[in-house]
Amino acid sequence: MARRPGPTTRRTVHEVVGDEVHQRPDTVVTEEPLEIRLSWPGVSAHRVAVTMRTPGADFDLAAGYLQSEGVTTPGTPPRTVAYCTDVDLTPEQEFNVVTVELGEQPRRHPASRSTTMSLASGAAGTESIEEIFTPEDDPIPVRTRVGADVVRALPDRLIERQKVFSRTGSLHAAGVFDPGGQLVIAREDVGRHNAVDKVIGARQLGTATYDEDVLLCVSGRIGFDIVTKAVAGRVGTIVAVGGPSSLALELADRAGVTVCGFTRGERFVVYTHPERVRDV
Amino acid sequence: MARRPGPTTRRTVHEVVGDEVHQRPDTVVTEEPLEIRLSWPGVSAHRVAVTMRTPGADFDLAAGYLQSEGVTTPGTPPRTVAYCTDVDLTPEQEFNVVTVELGEQPRRHPASRSTTMSLASGAAGTESIEEIFTPEDDPIPVRTRVGADVVRALPDRLIERQKVFSRTGSLHAAGVFDPGGQLVIAREDVGRHNAVDKVIGARQLGTATYDEDVLLCVSGRIGFDIVTKAVAGRVGTIVAVGGPSSLALELADRAGVTVCGFTRGERFVVYTHPERVRDV
Repeated sequence: MARRPGPTTRRTVHEVVGDEVHQRPDTVVTEEPLEIRLSWPGVSAHRVAVTMRTPGADFDLAAGYLQSEGVTTPGTPPRTVAYCTDVDLTPEQEFNVVTVELGEQPRRHPASRSTTMSLASGAAGTESIEEIFTPEDDPIPVRTRVGADVVRALPDRLIERQKVFSRTGSLHAAGVFDPGGQLVIAREDVGRHNAVDKVIGARQLGTATYDEDVLLCVSGRIGFDIVTKAVAGRVGTIVAVGGPSSLALELADRAGVTVCGFTRGERFVVYTHPERVRDV
Repeated sequence: MARRPGPTTRRTVHEVVGDEVHQRPDTVVTEEPLEIRLSWPGVSAHRVAVTMRTPGADFDLAAGYLQSEGVTTPGTPPRTVAYCTDVDLTPEQEFNVVTVELGEQPRRHPASRSTTMSLASGAAGTESIEEIFTPEDDPIPVRTRVGADVVRALPDRLIERQKVFSRTGSLHAAGVFDPGGQLVIAREDVGRHNAVDKVIGARQLGTATYDEDVLLCVSGRIGFDIVTKAVAGRVGTIVAVGGPSSLALELADRAGVTVCGFTRGERFVVYTHPERVRDV
């Protein structure tokens, strides 16, 4: 049986404190490449991406990545997701290759986004937004309003659930919470985009059940990539400890996503669609 | 004359503090796509990458990106770097497209790394490392030792230089310091990888002058991508406020890079090549 890579790795380090130096064992977060392969009826499995990630919830990550790239449709799960068992892979490699089999044609061809996008056509920024959210797409509707107290409580609740973080101090977390502030699912990764893909993919695979009225809480900042994933995963609200970028907010404006940033203590800032926050 | 995009963008936001809500103007960090085009003798300019970045030091970013991807050789600057002036670009688009003209063939074909890497050949992780640092490459030699006091001082000195950060709270910074702790160059970006590409590229273009004995200080964590850029840019030491990943350390071990993490107050941790730090 192959040894499955764990979320942390042991190292010997030198710790310097003032004038003293101690050699001691330490724990660092594991980063390993994950190769994602895709197949659909008539097309055999082939590599569509290699991403550096922290091992764990690899199937969620693969499913979420494909949804964020617009390859799959929310609510239509892949037929199968499995570690690769090619005879030419060593046992160690098997756990770094995931094959996703779709039951139908991909909604958009994998990797077409990055290879076709050129700023020479369309205005800068605007084209990037329309790659994610086309004029034909429907904005996420406001069906439930969330209390300010719920928004404020999420970062601490997410930290409470960060198990690996406390050991390595190097992981980003993403969590999905219901409108009442109850945690639905949380995931961690060395890459902030991977942590979000893992919680988005979990719904695709049925690992977690939630609808558009939930809140996505992230430990870092809100770049364009994070809002892209929320839009692809049809999540109506993002709450972050860090701040957002201009392009992230333009996409959120367009797609009907509420962005709350700098959520610290009693304070937070609502950047887009404040109608989803009660009392604002 | 076209309006050049600035590093920050104005928005109107709702700030919630306790039970009070204030509507007020706010400043967020600008994120816009930058398209990088490349030409060399016999091959006309064509798109090789689109990266989301904070406008500013765009030429440094383009040069550093190409060096990190192994396209250019350290010390051999491109022939020209310029904003694009295609007649089919609007004035706004011109500042989001940079064309790099090489005087010779690229050292490695652009984007070949991501398209050829497959975990099916080579062990997971190890192949990623050998894509960056082949067995034929020479590790960075230890020629100067750095004092523990210098390492400890860098994060605060970097923060002092973060001009945009204080206005938006959402930027990553990267700085290069000489072995005595003097700042050589600092750059900021919404993407931590971009901030590092900007300081690496500055040397390629002659915007900054430094050698292998310098220290690269980053405000975030040390993932595989950050060590990749230090190795491609021949920088011997990385100092970070955050912690490193396992694969980042494997690459640093191999390439002769000293990694110092969790540099906070009197404390820091030396993960690789401690022989470069005096008193350790």
